[in-house]
Amino acid sequence: MSARAGIVVTGTEVLTGRVRDRNGPWLSDRLRELGIDLAHITICGDRPEDMEAQLRFLADQGCDLILTSGGLGPTADDLTLEIVARFAGVELALDPELEERIAAILRPLIKRWPHLDPEAVLASNRKQALVPEGATVLAPVGTAPGMAVPAGARTPAVVVLPGPPRELARMWPDAVASPPFQAVLARATEYSQTMVRLFGIPESEIAETLRVAEEAIGDGFSDLEITTCLRRGEVEVVTRYEAHAEGSWTALERVLGERHGDTIFSTDGSSVDEQVARLLDGRTIAVAESCTGGLLAARLTELPGSSAYFAGGVVAYSDAAKAALLGVDAALIEARGAVSAEVAEALAAGAIERFGADVGVGVTGIAGPGGGSEAKPVGTVYVSVRTAGGEPLTRHLTLPGGRDDVRDRTTTVALHLLRRQLAGGAPAPR
Amino acid sequence: MSARAGIVVTGTEVLTGRVRDRNGPWLSDRLRELGIDLAHITICGDRPEDMEAQLRFLADQGCDLILTSGGLGPTADDLTLEIVARFAGVELALDPELEERIAAILRPLIKRWPHLDPEAVLASNRKQALVPEGATVLAPVGTAPGMAVPAGARTPAVVVLPGPPRELARMWPDAVASPPFQAVLARATEYSQTMVRLFGIPESEIAETLRVAEEAIGDGFSDLEITTCLRRGEVEVVTRYEAHAEGSWTALERVLGERHGDTIFSTDGSSVDEQVARLLDGRTIAVAESCTGGLLAARLTELPGSSAYFAGGVVAYSDAAKAALLGVDAALIEARGAVSAEVAEALAAGAIERFGADVGVGVTGIAGPGGGSEAKPVGTVYVSVRTAGGEPLTRHLTLPGGRDDVRDRTTTVALHLLRRQLAGGAPAPR
Repeated sequence: MSARAGIVVTGTEVLTGRVRDRNGPWLSDRLRELGIDLAHITICGDRPEDMEAQLRFLADQGCDLILTSGGLGPTADDLTLEIVARFAGVELALDPELEERIAAILRPLIKRWPHLDPEAVLASNRKQALVPEGATVLAPVGTAPGMAVPAGARTPAVVVLPGPPRELARMWPDAVASPPFQAVLARATEYSQTMVRLFGIPESEIAETLRVAEEAIGDGFSDLEITTCLRRGEVEVVTRYEAHAEGSWTALERVLGERHGDTIFSTDGSSVDEQVARLLDGRTIAVAESCTGGLLAARLTELPGSSAYFAGGVVAYSDAAKAALLGVDAALIEARGAVSAEVAEALAAGAIERFGADVGVGVTGIAGPGGGSEAKPVGTVYVSVRTAGGEPLTRHLTLPGGRDDVRDRTTTVALHLLRRQLAGGAPAPR
Repeated sequence: MSARAGIVVTGTEVLTGRVRDRNGPWLSDRLRELGIDLAHITICGDRPEDMEAQLRFLADQGCDLILTSGGLGPTADDLTLEIVARFAGVELALDPELEERIAAILRPLIKRWPHLDPEAVLASNRKQALVPEGATVLAPVGTAPGMAVPAGARTPAVVVLPGPPRELARMWPDAVASPPFQAVLARATEYSQTMVRLFGIPESEIAETLRVAEEAIGDGFSDLEITTCLRRGEVEVVTRYEAHAEGSWTALERVLGERHGDTIFSTDGSSVDEQVARLLDGRTIAVAESCTGGLLAARLTELPGSSAYFAGGVVAYSDAAKAALLGVDAALIEARGAVSAEVAEALAAGAIERFGADVGVGVTGIAGPGGGSEAKPVGTVYVSVRTAGGEPLTRHLTLPGGRDDVRDRTTTVALHLLRRQLAGGAPAPR
């Protein structure tokens, strides 16, 4: 038994790359949790014939379920329901109760923009109250309702969802609960999924490890669906398997541990950000950064509740600011250069001192594209981490890539250094 | 004459949403610049039959050109070339010159990771030197070469590109120059494209304006291909048209200007970030932020060359840090609350004073999910902008959404306030 799905994302702004699609990846995650195999994601613009072709393609490919996102708005280029109804071979009919429900949502909005014509707004929203025959209505989160259309003789179930990611996410539980979706779910497979995260090794070394594991495990290896990927400098190994392959997974886990124990930092899905937050354990942290320009502070304050441990940060580009706001000795900058291990250490110490924090991080480097030299090319970065009164842990990095890459990668290295410093004996990032 | 294209993005990590696809949107932009119509983007995992089905689908849909990204690596699940050769009905043959070229790239890498087996690495990379009959080899940027396979009797031209975005981008000029691509390009249409950016109005108001424009312009309106989208709180109106529709565009431009002159801030493609950088015109800027936690500083330092005008920033979460690092009067915080117009203004003044800057920005607010109250719910934010010695320009915002939305949207509002303050008579963001 297994269930196979496809996702159709519509919208010219997504197809043309002006808006990044967040729904495809999000829905993909949800399907995996439910044990439904995702085979294809397709993206089309606002041309009806292109969307219809994609629906047909997914049906031809044996999908039991199609999810669509977008094209439910009130404007003329929002045609998803019309196309899906035609595809499923059913009629659209006005649902007066739904029409009144949408009108009730719109009335306060109409008051907020008083120069709009209320009649025109209500009229153009009437088409959002059209329901395909036999479909389950998914209550609107914004103004657009979703629809779950049951499978037909030759068409799969189609669940029609709105484009705005927040609306789509809030509508999801209703979509899953709908009879058309439940009918598909009855055929889904139950999988377990594990994630191992590593930092400080190239992805190719994992490829080699998987070859070794394949030899060690033998036939059972093919029961494991393994994906590896490189993300923000970390390698992620995700393994999905059915219950009978539990033993193969245990064997793979052992091989990974034996070969990469020193670089594995997470086996429970936790990110390094979450680990640092946990390891701080009541202590406060402050940062002083140059080339990352605020990104390290922004990353440390990304998690809800971070105000409990984040004391503050200073972004000091100029030497004068490093001296005035963080007490870095001007003579030290002169002697060693602003981009040096010593200045990174002084920045970390200054952050601790100025914010009265328990832990400090200092970052100085050259993100480019200008500012590099032969001795210190673009990508040269020093990161230093220390606890109040403790010894600094400092790294000299030579990072590849452009300005954005250097800035982003530096924050990842800083978090891994922090993790190491706070955890004591934890493996060192290389 | 027109040319139609499709893009196939491969990789389980992209299909499952663990890695965001950046190649589809990037290639989409490039195709538009070249006047090639993009009809579909499809994403598949590492199952060969799914990729083959997508190639067939795009051929059936009348695409003249298919671009693929990914699946060119040395590991067993990298099958793109094999699949494309089968699809095009041609054989793969080893190119000894290309094999030597790849080996030359690998030798220094092998030295860097001395515990790898050099023979195994070279052997597994040999498959990257397989070339489909008749294809143009695109020189490798990483280790994987690309291929441009000419159109066959019943198959379109296929240009095979690597997955890493940087490699793909660097290989692009060679791809466009290849004979198979040039043959498609000969059929492309020449378009003009304009972009109008607005801030401070709902997208639905633009929909109404387009209805008005349609009536005013008449038949010529349908010659304009108009897309509107909402991004980071700004509305973008992109219009694409062929040379004969120039008059229709001019008419639409007039309608937009008449109805939305006060909220249009860009007609030349420039972002508000670029405009602020230009308007600073030699002046320096400093920021003091609380709820945005460094994101505003990070955004102001995103552009290359920002070190010339960005003096520095302080992230002050606690009241103590606001007082100690930015000289905000503790009594003021006590009297008005940390989240207040007065404290935002004092933060801006403190940033100017501490960094000796010409322009200052202060941000204080509640990003959530905790910290809200009935009087000041989550999403309450104050942003203040001022020049040294000048009057502050301050806004009270009530932003919808979660923590990330509030933080991000606040940086956009701050940039628009800055733009207004620096430009003098420019339209005010609402």
